[in-house]
Amino acid sequence: MAKNQVKIFDSTLRDGAQGHGISFSLEDKIKIVKALDDMKVDYIEAGNPGSNPKDMEFFKRLKDIELKNANVVAFGSTRRPEIKVEEDKNLKDLLLSGADTIVVFGKSWTFQVTDIIKTTLDENIQMIKDTIEYLCKDGKRVIFDAEHFYDGYKSNKDYAMKTLNVAQEAGAETIVLCDTNGGTLPQEIYEITKNVKENIQVEIGIHSHDDMGMAVANSIMAVEAGAKQVQGTFIGIGERCGNANLSAIIPILKLKLGYDILDNNELVNLTKTSRYIAEICNITLEDQSPFVGNSSFAHKGGMHIDAVTKSPKSYEHIKPELVGNKRRFLVSEVSGKSTIFQEIKKIFPSISKDDNSVQKITDRLKELEYEGYQFEGAEGTVELVIRKIIGKYKPFFKLNHFKIIGEQPYGLEKFSSTAVINITVDGQNEMTAAEGEGPVNALDKAIRKALEVFYPELKKARLVDYKVRVLDSESATEAKVRVLIESTDGIEKWSTVGVSRDVIQASWIALVDSIEYKLIKDIEKKVKAYF
Amino acid sequence: MAKNQVKIFDSTLRDGAQGHGISFSLEDKIKIVKALDDMKVDYIEAGNPGSNPKDMEFFKRLKDIELKNANVVAFGSTRRPEIKVEEDKNLKDLLLSGADTIVVFGKSWTFQVTDIIKTTLDENIQMIKDTIEYLCKDGKRVIFDAEHFYDGYKSNKDYAMKTLNVAQEAGAETIVLCDTNGGTLPQEIYEITKNVKENIQVEIGIHSHDDMGMAVANSIMAVEAGAKQVQGTFIGIGERCGNANLSAIIPILKLKLGYDILDNNELVNLTKTSRYIAEICNITLEDQSPFVGNSSFAHKGGMHIDAVTKSPKSYEHIKPELVGNKRRFLVSEVSGKSTIFQEIKKIFPSISKDDNSVQKITDRLKELEYEGYQFEGAEGTVELVIRKIIGKYKPFFKLNHFKIIGEQPYGLEKFSSTAVINITVDGQNEMTAAEGEGPVNALDKAIRKALEVFYPELKKARLVDYKVRVLDSESATEAKVRVLIESTDGIEKWSTVGVSRDVIQASWIALVDSIEYKLIKDIEKKVKAYF
Repeated sequence: MAKNQVKIFDSTLRDGAQGHGISFSLEDKIKIVKALDDMKVDYIEAGNPGSNPKDMEFFKRLKDIELKNANVVAFGSTRRPEIKVEEDKNLKDLLLSGADTIVVFGKSWTFQVTDIIKTTLDENIQMIKDTIEYLCKDGKRVIFDAEHFYDGYKSNKDYAMKTLNVAQEAGAETIVLCDTNGGTLPQEIYEITKNVKENIQVEIGIHSHDDMGMAVANSIMAVEAGAKQVQGTFIGIGERCGNANLSAIIPILKLKLGYDILDNNELVNLTKTSRYIAEICNITLEDQSPFVGNSSFAHKGGMHIDAVTKSPKSYEHIKPELVGNKRRFLVSEVSGKSTIFQEIKKIFPSISKDDNSVQKITDRLKELEYEGYQFEGAEGTVELVIRKIIGKYKPFFKLNHFKIIGEQPYGLEKFSSTAVINITVDGQNEMTAAEGEGPVNALDKAIRKALEVFYPELKKARLVDYKVRVLDSESATEAKVRVLIESTDGIEKWSTVGVSRDVIQASWIALVDSIEYKLIKDIEKKVKAYF
Repeated sequence: MAKNQVKIFDSTLRDGAQGHGISFSLEDKIKIVKALDDMKVDYIEAGNPGSNPKDMEFFKRLKDIELKNANVVAFGSTRRPEIKVEEDKNLKDLLLSGADTIVVFGKSWTFQVTDIIKTTLDENIQMIKDTIEYLCKDGKRVIFDAEHFYDGYKSNKDYAMKTLNVAQEAGAETIVLCDTNGGTLPQEIYEITKNVKENIQVEIGIHSHDDMGMAVANSIMAVEAGAKQVQGTFIGIGERCGNANLSAIIPILKLKLGYDILDNNELVNLTKTSRYIAEICNITLEDQSPFVGNSSFAHKGGMHIDAVTKSPKSYEHIKPELVGNKRRFLVSEVSGKSTIFQEIKKIFPSISKDDNSVQKITDRLKELEYEGYQFEGAEGTVELVIRKIIGKYKPFFKLNHFKIIGEQPYGLEKFSSTAVINITVDGQNEMTAAEGEGPVNALDKAIRKALEVFYPELKKARLVDYKVRVLDSESATEAKVRVLIESTDGIEKWSTVGVSRDVIQASWIALVDSIEYKLIKDIEKKVKAYF
């Protein structure tokens, strides 16, 4: 490997899955694998097939997915004590998984050997040796995760080093030093890693945990000491306080330490990818997240805003665009307005920057944001706000009335929802009803049914994604809810958003915007064709 | 100062207030000052009276508040270029504030001097000198914040050092090196701070920012290099990615580096104080926060749970109780029969591991998980599943019927929801109705109204958190929804979960579990009191 390279190893789907509140469906996992592959992550630790049958199912599914860059690896333990390696069911499963590379974790801390797995120090060494040799003989590449290595080294240095040596001799191509409990200080990480580097010939990796809020720094210290593989999770999820956050480590390695990982035009996808993965995890990325947070480059202090306007490097350590993020001014309207102006120009190219609707639209969007709207990824709604203020908008229908009834009928255990709707289009009235899986589904069906009478082109449009986010959950069932809807007509995709304390109203707002946006785009196509 | 002491300097009310979404009322600030004082913080930076009249008002108010430990300090800039120090309004305000100690910030980076404040390098030196001498002459203690110090040092080391020397000569008692843009690496922080320590005689401090996720580590490195004051904000709020997080730094300094800050019986208030301050900031502390998060000591992996049960130090770097936090076991699909057995034992201590209900309960939980339930953080629902299978459960009411009507009335733009409910308890029928912000809120109110007739103790129970997760969003409005509810009776908190394609039914399931759990706990209390 070139001298200035470091490999990125992502364990979102294995260590990350052990985080509080994390639960991936099969589809979630596939989306994550593809997103990580696009980000040129070197290794994706996809699961522990021996201990989780769902993981085995996932590995089988992965065989059909073509990846561009990443090496998908399976994770599992050294063989159980006192049994023959060929008889260990977990290891058989690891081989069955089909992964070319296997991460074997084993104990490097005497205490863990004697008190937790309750075997002898010699047997543990044998377990490491047997397991790695067994896998290598089968043609697998093996990475050895030395669990609790730093605690083990501090407790009994000779034994800890012995575990690494036997792993190396048995054929491990990389030895990863794990700060499993997350309690090792940066200087200790540096010194111990350096020592290991002087005594081990194969590649060294680092796997840190954030129990002291220093996992990123510890990973960087290990790299400075000679580690060439960094393990973490893309957005820092994981057991307890989480794993090392790769979305911070990657830009630090590239932009600050000059390592040759990712091209510039891949690094710009960092923010988008982090947010995408966070969505799948059903996590809200902290605004204050380094590099990729909403507020990473947000300035509020008046002096800061003045300074950054004169020269961004005065209060920004890197250019936000390098990682696909944006500068924000939290008080001033200045930058807000120019970004929004760019959005308006996309729809109305001849608009002048001084047109007073630009300010009105900016104000209106800020007002809606204050209420809980989020316009990133809701371009359909943004366009409608713009059109309504500029005056290039006419409602496609008038809602007279709708009623939704959700009930548990007497004597039956099944819930059902019915929506009744009454609209007027160009003076013509239409009333209809629909049943659905729940109130929102019923309403969705009813409005489409009613409108398709007048706009048959709506038959091609359908929803493909529906997300609900509770905004102020401490208000419990009175909380504001934000609904994000993604729609398609088979050719294009567009998203719209609605906010309300009533999930039905929030869904209604997003649904109507979705329908109207589609109808406007159809008109636009006709305009392009005939004018 | 004793050799093993480090001073803690909290800027929640000044630097912290510049964070996104932070807005403190006068009362908020007083609460925070008292909480920080209780935690024996050495300095509380209470504001910038020269630039913010509200801060001046706060300083006046502070004169009437008796603090046990903390020194309340005021923050302000060196004098403006080209004016006499006595004519600088900001400085006059600093003196008027009544603070005994003043933090003066000045530029240490040539670029900032020439390009941002647009003056000469010599004039900047004079500004630092004049300002500090002026304040000292008035009897004030002065701390000098060398803004952008690390960038300045790397850019023009001599000039940066010159600014420190002049500050020292002018009478500053502490010189704080600020990594204002948050872009300096830990090793650089260490080496530069060490260099400064060798050339400056007064106390050195560190003020880092979290733009790379390394503010905590950078603060620790600076202390290792000789810094004796650490500036940060208690829960890490601040501009952009925030300031150094003191709630992580304090336990690291005390428990890992052996510094003599706080007694043990103060450190145990760390978690409580962090959560209290987060409440005031209207921020939800991340579950993964180091030391003080909900999940800092939460274990999910089956193997981790086994190990931690045998010996906590196997997967915990410190005892959670030292910082006032708790160990948690998260029940999930990853953990197996033995974790679930531990959960059952909490309710039914005499149950045997071989009791066949253990397997039935495990199977049932996995089955529900497959349907989309998630039991982590839903211990209320888990208990009910356990009870129902073991047979120690009887429904508290029978639902005969409910109907929910959500409608937009003719001619009005307001949406409203009504729930009508009909239940039977011990042969007695009760029917009632309630209106709400949305269908779920209406149903929540209606069921409580009906049940409080029979179980008045439910009046004390209320919802404090409501989360909705769309499970398979590609099914759009037909998607399965998982609702998680958190409830409290003012003393305890408990959570319950419900899954359905209908958000109302999912909410209903979680609501009923929440209510029944509360009623069961009340019976349990009576059993403990009388049997």
